[in-house]
Amino acid sequence: MSKSDQALVTGRENPEEDLPMAAEVFTAAQVLAGKIHRTPILTSRALNTACGAEIFLKCEHLQKVGAFKARGAANAVAQLPAGTRRVATHSSGNHGAALAWAAAEQGLACTVVMPENAPAAKRAAVAAYGADIVLCAPTLAAREGTLAELVAETGAHVVPPFDDRRVIAGQGTVAQEIIGQCRELGFTPDLIVAPVGGGGLLAGTGLAASALAPEIKVLGAEPAGADDAQRSFRSGQRVTEQTPETIADGLRTTLGVRNYSIIRKTVNDIVTVSEDDIREALTLIWTRTKQLVEPSAAVSLAAVLAHPARFKGKKVAVVLTGGNMDLTAIGELLI
Amino acid sequence: MSKSDQALVTGRENPEEDLPMAAEVFTAAQVLAGKIHRTPILTSRALNTACGAEIFLKCEHLQKVGAFKARGAANAVAQLPAGTRRVATHSSGNHGAALAWAAAEQGLACTVVMPENAPAAKRAAVAAYGADIVLCAPTLAAREGTLAELVAETGAHVVPPFDDRRVIAGQGTVAQEIIGQCRELGFTPDLIVAPVGGGGLLAGTGLAASALAPEIKVLGAEPAGADDAQRSFRSGQRVTEQTPETIADGLRTTLGVRNYSIIRKTVNDIVTVSEDDIREALTLIWTRTKQLVEPSAAVSLAAVLAHPARFKGKKVAVVLTGGNMDLTAIGELLI
Repeated sequence: MSKSDQALVTGRENPEEDLPMAAEVFTAAQVLAGKIHRTPILTSRALNTACGAEIFLKCEHLQKVGAFKARGAANAVAQLPAGTRRVATHSSGNHGAALAWAAAEQGLACTVVMPENAPAAKRAAVAAYGADIVLCAPTLAAREGTLAELVAETGAHVVPPFDDRRVIAGQGTVAQEIIGQCRELGFTPDLIVAPVGGGGLLAGTGLAASALAPEIKVLGAEPAGADDAQRSFRSGQRVTEQTPETIADGLRTTLGVRNYSIIRKTVNDIVTVSEDDIREALTLIWTRTKQLVEPSAAVSLAAVLAHPARFKGKKVAVVLTGGNMDLTAIGELLI
Repeated sequence: MSKSDQALVTGRENPEEDLPMAAEVFTAAQVLAGKIHRTPILTSRALNTACGAEIFLKCEHLQKVGAFKARGAANAVAQLPAGTRRVATHSSGNHGAALAWAAAEQGLACTVVMPENAPAAKRAAVAAYGADIVLCAPTLAAREGTLAELVAETGAHVVPPFDDRRVIAGQGTVAQEIIGQCRELGFTPDLIVAPVGGGGLLAGTGLAASALAPEIKVLGAEPAGADDAQRSFRSGQRVTEQTPETIADGLRTTLGVRNYSIIRKTVNDIVTVSEDDIREALTLIWTRTKQLVEPSAAVSLAAVLAHPARFKGKKVAVVLTGGNMDLTAIGELLI
């Protein structure tokens, strides 16, 4: 969709004004019902002891395609402009697989622009869902250029990985489910912790929680080696440049425009964790809960372990975001 | 307990007559309620496609201590002779940790005789539950001798890993739960597949299923490199010697006396799988369900993959027995 087409739909040219409302999260939940899993919440006495808090793990690594990204992609695909035959995106990670899956479910064609150095497992996942893969040089410019050419040639509709109101609303359904599941268990969590990369999940979480249960504190968790979101949040100015250095490969991107606007308004704070914190949390999750999550998924729990004073004795919902990784890397990630 | 003490309790000197009845499984389920987890059953579309059957994974790797062994150990500890202050066993695996845990829950002392070459992770687990560890040479004779000395010195009550009616009855609660959970979902499984090493789980499974739903076929799954149970089952004579060669370290033991007697009467067949079958099943479980199970736990699913004609289109409950392993070994186990 061109910028002016988008303005026709939303009535707004400026992305900072093109923000989803909480109601769009609730609509997304209805759209997604039956298409995605209502993932379980796991608890572990060993984890509670290690954290000095009551931890509720929201298991999005058990989601379709093994990551919460299925939510945003499916929500976007459910509200495409009439006549759309093909969707496209650029991705080296879970969003590409999620869009490929969501498109296939609706009988649509899909192209994913991937950097040549994307892991073989990620390419295989995208291909397995039947999407076309176009390889490009591993730079943002090459990815965006290749995608633009492809749109010009095929008329594909682009579904961005995070800076998109449909995607943010879809990811917000994670928090809506957490709040509903906790209430079924008879309580409201004191905090929800979600990792932040481009900010789709964290913005959606803030949006949903502030509407449904404003007493819940929403915290973003970010690798210190890719801390643009914390710097943006604390300075009041969106940071768009960084040289990420982190094993949490899903969190190397910088915050989107829409994401930053929502996070500023609805999130309580963003905390950072070291690489060792991430490895400690990963090891704890693998050994104690037997859940195979990817490094990015351990960043929320790492935040609880690294900042115990903020969480002591609290009920903390922690989002495990995904479980897609090269299993041969486990040995070197253990602490 | 000496042989004559045991005869006082059971009224029988001969272990082949000292067999649990199905009612003891049902009693065990009541004894264990609140002490152990009612573990979830997981399904996966990808797994169903790979198997050509409907697979229901009973997640005993999410059980207390990370293995179904918690059931038998807790059931035995709940019916110790009056005045017992200390329990003991020899184990290089999950039974030692399970007994250590069960004893600690009841405020009892526990000693576990472990071979010097037991993995550090297993020793750490036993120690973490507060049990005393006595190391010995890595032979069965040394293990039994050391345990006998220890019993003579301390008066500890021995809880054997599988050849024990309380342990068999406890492990049988896995199948009782499977049948109950499937009925809640509106069906009865066509088959239950459980791995067989010493035969505690498989005997308990046969016992429970034959009483609760005799129409269910119970199959044992065994590594071809440790196939004493299949040879025993098919020849009608219990095989007591083998030189096991398998990555499924929990299944290297030979069938117990009580276990063999029950299995002969209540189990439909025992099938074997190759080491590659086990690695294929492990890889499938890890990558598709994101569940970190140990090699022995994949043997049931390996049986479904290796013998498709037996399972085609059927509803198959598959027991994932445990999740305790050295995670650095994952790379070399992948296929």
